[in-house]
Amino acid sequence: MKVCIVGCGAIGSLYAAHLARLDDVEAWAFDLAREHVDAINKNGLRLTGLSDFVATVHARTDAREIPQCELGIIATKTMFTRSAIEAAARIFEDGAVCSVQNGIGNEEIVAEYVPRVIQGTIFPAGHITGPGVVNHDAGGKTWIGPFATKPARMEEVEQLADALNRSGIDCLAMADARGAQWTKLIFNSASNAMGALTRLPHGVACDQEGVRKIMSVLVKEGEAVAEALGIALDSDPEALLDYGREKAYYHPPSMLQDVMAERLTEVDALNGGIARLGRELGIPCPMNEACTAMIKGLEFSWTLEYPEH
Amino acid sequence: MKVCIVGCGAIGSLYAAHLARLDDVEAWAFDLAREHVDAINKNGLRLTGLSDFVATVHARTDAREIPQCELGIIATKTMFTRSAIEAAARIFEDGAVCSVQNGIGNEEIVAEYVPRVIQGTIFPAGHITGPGVVNHDAGGKTWIGPFATKPARMEEVEQLADALNRSGIDCLAMADARGAQWTKLIFNSASNAMGALTRLPHGVACDQEGVRKIMSVLVKEGEAVAEALGIALDSDPEALLDYGREKAYYHPPSMLQDVMAERLTEVDALNGGIARLGRELGIPCPMNEACTAMIKGLEFSWTLEYPEH
Repeated sequence: MKVCIVGCGAIGSLYAAHLARLDDVEAWAFDLAREHVDAINKNGLRLTGLSDFVATVHARTDAREIPQCELGIIATKTMFTRSAIEAAARIFEDGAVCSVQNGIGNEEIVAEYVPRVIQGTIFPAGHITGPGVVNHDAGGKTWIGPFATKPARMEEVEQLADALNRSGIDCLAMADARGAQWTKLIFNSASNAMGALTRLPHGVACDQEGVRKIMSVLVKEGEAVAEALGIALDSDPEALLDYGREKAYYHPPSMLQDVMAERLTEVDALNGGIARLGRELGIPCPMNEACTAMIKGLEFSWTLEYPEH
Repeated sequence: MKVCIVGCGAIGSLYAAHLARLDDVEAWAFDLAREHVDAINKNGLRLTGLSDFVATVHARTDAREIPQCELGIIATKTMFTRSAIEAAARIFEDGAVCSVQNGIGNEEIVAEYVPRVIQGTIFPAGHITGPGVVNHDAGGKTWIGPFATKPARMEEVEQLADALNRSGIDCLAMADARGAQWTKLIFNSASNAMGALTRLPHGVACDQEGVRKIMSVLVKEGEAVAEALGIALDSDPEALLDYGREKAYYHPPSMLQDVMAERLTEVDALNGGIARLGRELGIPCPMNEACTAMIKGLEFSWTLEYPEH
């Protein structure tokens, strides 16, 4: 079976390298970072940290050089979903593509370009340490299921889950993976927004009484939207926040990392996604709206040129 | 008449230098910045910008070297109100002290230490450009009136207003100056909090639709608290926000300046003050509460030491 990873950054590389270890999988990767792609083709894709192996992945910066694949995994940052899947769509003329990206709204975009879509929610984390080398920072489960409006066949979902499990990534195939997605989304909307706006790592932010209260407001708004959508959460986002406080006290959420580096954040797929659905459903989400507006204000501040005076 | 300015920074210096120009005023200043104090005593206090003159001010870092004064003006940043007036109280054994500081809560603290209190709200702005030198950035009115719970005599208020007017500072003596104070407070709660959290200057922040909406929420909460206190605003804070957008598009509100310099902000006297009164009065102020918590989170982030790993 041929699988292509679209966006072979930290997360994409974790999935590409694992799948490439299987005898029955031919792993391809589409990514625009030429140095990373060249290193993967020359020396293999190396994982360090929790994983420690080198895998053979066929990486390309031009999607036309990649053969038809039965399965895909898209792992770009959410603001690049459309441009990436638009360029990669030709690879999946009869394929199913799984989003393992943050937040919501990605599957809808992917569905505009490929025949069948799988929604995924993941806990593994990593970071690129050099061209062709990714450190596997954290493990955790991956949940996948057919995406509602343009679903992959359940056999495809199970085939991907089976391959991931055999490759060393703990994966659960579900008929409805929305509960897992929304649990992580709501957790992220609280942890990431407060990290981005206060510049406090997750556990420290949780210990600031007023900040923790805002997190709870964000959680309640997200839960109300999930309920209106008929989605039953997998677990209590409040408990996840406390669990994260125990396990990752000094962990800077990814949006805090983005803010410190003055990079665009994924807020549109997190708080912005909840707020957008809230508007559509008539569920007020004032705190998610406010956090989205403030974080987009911050993004704008980095581009602002003050006049001379 | 002897007047002592407590906290002779940018704002204190504007008032000290103006008053010192009058033949019938002996101007003293209490400040802990030795270099600034020494320069004032050696070369006089120089104003540049909108004003351009040098005035004779007797500056001291030790309040015991300052004679009894009939009138005082406290102009420290709000987080230093208590320590400053505690040290300076001996100067005003039978005096009236006027706060020209930002926000609310200062007069209550001053009233613990001196016999009579005047509340003031000011628009003039400036910044220190070197020891003994302050640039007068912006003009505008000063409103003063007896402070409710420990009021100065109306003659004292009028005496101070008269001196300020003669010295070139446009000042209005009012029986009730709370409307002016709350109008500026509510304006500041919106402009400063959004500046601090988005890092956008005032006018640019106003032009971000989502950010402008948060400003309006902050204004509405502040107006509800003012109404519950029986305070009639002098003018519409929304109109002031728009006026500021026209006149000071690229002006960074003082809390944004503090955030960029990683200094403590005055949020406790602005959004924090509104939220505190809201709690006491049973008026919900969730956005002022949230902004206060996030800005205090930011302040905490600057002191945070990450463990080695």
